[in-house]
Amino acid sequence: MAYSSSDLRALRRAFHRHPEPAWREFRTTCRLVDELDRFDLDALHVGRDAHATDARMALPDPDDLDPWLERVRETAATPGLVDELAGGYTGAVAVLDRGDGPVVALRVDIDALPITETDADDHEPATEDFRSEHEGYMHACGHDAHVTIGLGVLDAIAESDFEGTFKVFFQPAEEESGGGKSMAESGHLDDVDYLFSVHVGLDHPTGDVVAGMVKPLAMAHLTATFHGESAHAGNAPNDGRNTIQAAADAISSLYGIPRHADGMTRVNVGRIEGGTASNVVAEETRLWGEARGETTELMRYVQSAFEQRVHAAADAHGCTADVELVSESPRADSDPELAAFVADAARDRVDVDRVLDAAEFGASEDATFLMRRVQNDGGLACYSIVGTDHPGDHHTPAFDVDETTLDTAVGTLTDAILDTAREQP
Amino acid sequence: MAYSSSDLRALRRAFHRHPEPAWREFRTTCRLVDELDRFDLDALHVGRDAHATDARMALPDPDDLDPWLERVRETAATPGLVDELAGGYTGAVAVLDRGDGPVVALRVDIDALPITETDADDHEPATEDFRSEHEGYMHACGHDAHVTIGLGVLDAIAESDFEGTFKVFFQPAEEESGGGKSMAESGHLDDVDYLFSVHVGLDHPTGDVVAGMVKPLAMAHLTATFHGESAHAGNAPNDGRNTIQAAADAISSLYGIPRHADGMTRVNVGRIEGGTASNVVAEETRLWGEARGETTELMRYVQSAFEQRVHAAADAHGCTADVELVSESPRADSDPELAAFVADAARDRVDVDRVLDAAEFGASEDATFLMRRVQNDGGLACYSIVGTDHPGDHHTPAFDVDETTLDTAVGTLTDAILDTAREQP
Amino acid sequence: MAYSSSDLRALRRAFHRHPEPAWREFRTTCRLVDELDRFDLDALHVGRDAHATDARMALPDPDDLDPWLERVRETAATPGLVDELAGGYTGAVAVLDRGDGPVVALRVDIDALPITETDADDHEPATEDFRSEHEGYMHACGHDAHVTIGLGVLDAIAESDFEGTFKVFFQPAEEESGGGKSMAESGHLDDVDYLFSVHVGLDHPTGDVVAGMVKPLAMAHLTATFHGESAHAGNAPNDGRNTIQAAADAISSLYGIPRHADGMTRVNVGRIEGGTASNVVAEETRLWGEARGETTELMRYVQSAFEQRVHAAADAHGCTADVELVSESPRADSDPELAAFVADAARDRVDVDRVLDAAEFGASEDATFLMRRVQNDGGLACYSIVGTDHPGDHHTPAFDVDETTLDTAVGTLTDAILDTAREQP
Amino acid sequence: MAYSSSDLRALRRAFHRHPEPAWREFRTTCRLVDELDRFDLDALHVGRDAHATDARMALPDPDDLDPWLERVRETAATPGLVDELAGGYTGAVAVLDRGDGPVVALRVDIDALPITETDADDHEPATEDFRSEHEGYMHACGHDAHVTIGLGVLDAIAESDFEGTFKVFFQPAEEESGGGKSMAESGHLDDVDYLFSVHVGLDHPTGDVVAGMVKPLAMAHLTATFHGESAHAGNAPNDGRNTIQAAADAISSLYGIPRHADGMTRVNVGRIEGGTASNVVAEETRLWGEARGETTELMRYVQSAFEQRVHAAADAHGCTADVELVSESPRADSDPELAAFVADAARDRVDVDRVLDAAEFGASEDATFLMRRVQNDGGLACYSIVGTDHPGDHHTPAFDVDETTLDTAVGTLTDAILDTAREQP
Repeated sequence: MAYSSSDLRALRRAFHRHPEPAWREFRTTCRLVDELDRFDLDALHVGRDAHATDARMALPDPDDLDPWLERVRETAATPGLVDELAGGYTGAVAVLDRGDGPVVALRVDIDALPITETDADDHEPATEDFRSEHEGYMHACGHDAHVTIGLGVLDAIAESDFEGTFKVFFQPAEEESGGGKSMAESGHLDDVDYLFSVHVGLDHPTGDVVAGMVKPLAMAHLTATFHGESAHAGNAPNDGRNTIQAAADAISSLYGIPRHADGMTRVNVGRIEGGTASNVVAEETRLWGEARGETTELMRYVQSAFEQRVHAAADAHGCTADVELVSESPRADSDPELAAFVADAARDRVDVDRVLDAAEFGASEDATFLMRRVQNDGGLACYSIVGTDHPGDHHTPAFDVDETTLDTAVGTLTDAILDTAREQP
Repeated sequence: MAYSSSDLRALRRAFHRHPEPAWREFRTTCRLVDELDRFDLDALHVGRDAHATDARMALPDPDDLDPWLERVRETAATPGLVDELAGGYTGAVAVLDRGDGPVVALRVDIDALPITETDADDHEPATEDFRSEHEGYMHACGHDAHVTIGLGVLDAIAESDFEGTFKVFFQPAEEESGGGKSMAESGHLDDVDYLFSVHVGLDHPTGDVVAGMVKPLAMAHLTATFHGESAHAGNAPNDGRNTIQAAADAISSLYGIPRHADGMTRVNVGRIEGGTASNVVAEETRLWGEARGETTELMRYVQSAFEQRVHAAADAHGCTADVELVSESPRADSDPELAAFVADAARDRVDVDRVLDAAEFGASEDATFLMRRVQNDGGLACYSIVGTDHPGDHHTPAFDVDETTLDTAVGTLTDAILDTAREQP
Repeated sequence: MAYSSSDLRALRRAFHRHPEPAWREFRTTCRLVDELDRFDLDALHVGRDAHATDARMALPDPDDLDPWLERVRETAATPGLVDELAGGYTGAVAVLDRGDGPVVALRVDIDALPITETDADDHEPATEDFRSEHEGYMHACGHDAHVTIGLGVLDAIAESDFEGTFKVFFQPAEEESGGGKSMAESGHLDDVDYLFSVHVGLDHPTGDVVAGMVKPLAMAHLTATFHGESAHAGNAPNDGRNTIQAAADAISSLYGIPRHADGMTRVNVGRIEGGTASNVVAEETRLWGEARGETTELMRYVQSAFEQRVHAAADAHGCTADVELVSESPRADSDPELAAFVADAARDRVDVDRVLDAAEFGASEDATFLMRRVQNDGGLACYSIVGTDHPGDHHTPAFDVDETTLDTAVGTLTDAILDTAREQP
Repeated sequence: MAYSSSDLRALRRAFHRHPEPAWREFRTTCRLVDELDRFDLDALHVGRDAHATDARMALPDPDDLDPWLERVRETAATPGLVDELAGGYTGAVAVLDRGDGPVVALRVDIDALPITETDADDHEPATEDFRSEHEGYMHACGHDAHVTIGLGVLDAIAESDFEGTFKVFFQPAEEESGGGKSMAESGHLDDVDYLFSVHVGLDHPTGDVVAGMVKPLAMAHLTATFHGESAHAGNAPNDGRNTIQAAADAISSLYGIPRHADGMTRVNVGRIEGGTASNVVAEETRLWGEARGETTELMRYVQSAFEQRVHAAADAHGCTADVELVSESPRADSDPELAAFVADAARDRVDVDRVLDAAEFGASEDATFLMRRVQNDGGLACYSIVGTDHPGDHHTPAFDVDETTLDTAVGTLTDAILDTAREQP
């Protein structure tokens, strides 16, 4: 079939118009499957078949999932598919089997963010009429481009003389680090020899390609819930067990977790909610926090200290606390042998001005679950960045991508995949 | 007209069924005015006429007020009255002029609480079918009884040989300390010689009367809003100005405000909300707190230290902070000369088992605004408690009153008022 | 023998010149015993005989005790006595037996403070040449006057027609709350019917007498020692267990112990020492703190919360902590029946301008151990204040007393004791 | 003259026996100058001539300096020299002028630590009778070896065919980062083309040579002194301005200074002293802390945040604070061109088993002041480590060096210097 540049652009805009947050990519998955049905695939895994059920993390409550499911049910062409996705089994794994040869895979992520998209005059989605139709949600990190790139590469490989097996993992719930693990453990990755992954932008302009991210931070999202006892703050403050005091002590203590000799660590409490009224000792307070480290071990060091300090702060005030791990992602680095294929492919392109062999990644990414799985089985993995001029920062209302990046990314990755299959590093 | 005991009970149940929170007592006021219209009043002040507009405190946003107004508009007998109440001018001042004599007043409060009423089998409002019809709100402090007592005393005085002027202040927004000041400064209190106020229960059983509360804590409700800068907690925590860290430091510091040589002080942060997500440095965090003191000066000491510490904690983290006074109430004690009339009246009743001359009040009450106003003008004031068996604590879902208390309170206060008018202490 | 006013003044100056801190009052005791030898006493208890050995609190290490002992050994008239005092058995109980009648006692304290006395031109001890000869130590609370008053009253009672038994307890180590308990439990108090105690000054000028202190705060002195692990703060901060961080968290938490519904509480950390160098994670840190309460129960509430918070703060940072009770004193109030005798005696004097029947005492005093002992056995106790113009505050380098107070105190107490013995309230 | 191995060992033991802390190396300098007098030096700079006076940091008070000076005065061969050193002008710069050629320098440090040396049976200085004679002080970091190596290399160069100028900087006060800056700015470094510096041990065993340290942390030692107001903690805690509370808040806040995107940072409070007694609100409290960073800019970031937080914490409690910079050292890395000469020289030696081209240095070193000075003027610098088996860790009572290291270090450095002078990288 072979997508044209304008086909890719149209696809991206279609996905952009209907952003869905983590584990609620029901419409996105339906649209994706509609598109995949046009390919001559050898297999398409959706629903429970695409995941290791219990490895899904940061899964929302049914109350949060169901309204998104109901919305798509009304418009879906294939109600049977919707049922398969129910309960948060979004995403898909598409497989092309082209005879003997290596198993090569591409992983792209598909979820959006709870951000209200700007309608400013200089925001192309607004002026070109493909702004988010799900008010309050937005593709503010470029995953609309990622899913499009996934389709584009699949199309190009299908049209090529590729020999071997090619799989595309359309992964949900990357923003919550929720979906990487369950796809990594789905079984579909077990025979993969070479895994590519891609992100657009990340402060790299159109024309840049970074062939191989290294040093993503391992990360754990944590919640801490303090349980105490309420009391009238005027009459009998001593009858209370004050969870706001306990949480405050915990926060001060958490940010003071010692820096580590072995490398970079991070800790944050990014959200807090507690108590009910100014004159009542707060019975319950919750923190949303995270631990990161330059290695998985360093992340565990922070996570463990986080838990210890939360419990100690609760003790100090006669409260108790629960700490829960919401989701996490390990550290995994790109293999330079595989990254070299991306670099070579990029250097051959006229629309690429600059190729960086590697870049450090100061944030976290749950593609690392898939990368480590492949690497642990003896395979190679590479996570690349294809630069794109983005007017606003990632995760802000004015974020947008330069759509010429779609061609660059599809072309670079396709060439790298073909070369990899031929040369098998 | 003369209410019977069962009339009073029916009135109380009618008010109980439609609880409305502070400044949103639209239906309550309409129902009250309907009832007052049956009296031969010399004046009835409602709407702006009942308040010093700018002295109203803790007034909700229009978004919070309007739905309550719209709800009553649909059912109100007198749409003109509803318009007068719009914008939160609830409550009323009823005046009987019975010739020469002292000006005596009674103040009762009329607002309810944001508490979901229990529907347990042993909760009489549930079994007797007058449970709250405004789900999530409840008369959980007995103000439904208070407004009934106000009507009952007005009725009894009207039927008596009382000589002088008698006023009943039906005050809104006591729970937020919002309405006392604006009624105190409305002008209607300026000629009052003797002011009575009453509360049911407060851990005193049916049969108890406390003739004169002393030592209510002066109180200030405060909010502190911290403004910082968000940043990615993994990539660049140093770019953030962390309001959750600042708020945590402030809380630790606030609870450490030194105890004061001159008497009891209290400080609390009862509610906190801040930040958006675990991986983002929190841009804004808000605290809801309070300062109390055994005297108004001690409350100011805590309030001032509260502000200083919030600002310092903001500075420590490169943030700024706004501290706002939401509402407050001063200290005012009952005058023993006036309390003696209540005690004498109570001792003469067969339904009163025990009369206490005074009791300390560990909490706060904005009746103190009215009491101080009268006392500063040379008058006398007395705040009494009429005990009632209450199955649950005040401000809990199972709170209820023993309805025999309505007669006890109406009788005691009426006798005390009549004796006061005759003897003028 | 009968001391004249100038005798009393000379005695006070002699004691002033040689201030000795808690449990190290060796020279003071020797001088006192020299003086007591001139009386015709029926018993004199010194050394181990004056104390319940194990009830002594806040006893210094031998290293701190011995240099003071050695100093007096060189000058002492009676080396045998010095041996009896060794190990911190300072103070004395003097007994006069004058036949049938009640057992009446007076308790005075004898220790000084680690404060360097001023040598300013307006400081009489400096200009009159009786400034402290123990540099760094000073009678800065008037106990030099107290021991003199004890001798003066003993002398006056001896010269009077008193019938009964009279005892004077010269108590050491009041400043550390160390000596009250061991004298209370020495056995010598067991038959006492009436106990008087006295303090000069306390912001009352010459001419004031306060006949009966009430509401002294119950108090506990506590130390908390945090044990952690040191580490190089640059190389490997994560290897440390940071006791300075733990102590800081504990302090913030301690000052936030909730105020109590039942009355006044106090908490303080008045001294801290920890760590060795800026570039080393601190292995050990110690806090010196205290808990107080309006009642003994309230003090225990604070003490218990103090311990809990110290241990929790240690846990938060992987440290351990020991909390030790150094010394304590309970609450005990003066009995008004006995205070009336002091008030009457004071009112009869021309050198007393004003008599207060009672005063609240915002601080702590270990005379309460003796008072409670007597009260628990059915006796009566009264702690009085005799005003004195004092240029500097108590516990400051410029403190001094108006020596005319010696006569006032001796006269008032002697008369009160004689009247008590006669009338037996 | 040419030192033998046993000469070097004897020298090291002589220095070991008389450890002197920062700026008090009076005896060490005298002994050193005695030794240098045996050389045919072209210049010897001592006293004020060796330093930029105002650039000296962390200089002790005269009270701390003078006793050390007096001690050496009694034994010194050359009283005139002692006078030159008075006031903390310790150390020396020795100069050999051997005609045309580059100016090459070696910097060694000479100070000891306030640590009590062990007298355990397995501690060679104890068994071989050269344990510290200055009880409480110890050469616990190997600077006794460093000064010996400085002499040994000077001797070897003097005996060689070296052409150019050779200088040895015997720098005082490295442990306090006090002496590097004043020697760097003394003028004697201005013409230096190549600067070598050396440290023994640092967890590298005998046989290791690290040719070029990189990434020493930039460091600033800071003190923060809080000034408040004392008050009686029972009577009137509200009259106090509590510096212990302020310091505790500051500490919690300091450890929470955000990690930085640009690299490693460190913060520590390693010592605290405050207050006087448990029952007094603490009037003054002092912290000894430090800020470090992977770059000088990162160190400044932490230093600035340190100051901000100290002042804010003081404000919170009505206190004031002074923050003082005691001393500091910048970041400077070894130049690989120069390090190559050390590596080559080491590889040629039979007593070297392993040569590392570079190593990261997790701590701080004020040799960086001299290195940056040379580098900023266009020269090259290299800081090397010569491994030594050390039984205890650096800065512990059981630290010792393997004396064979003296030969290895002298040999390696001499060869590197000779090659450098010949080849001029």
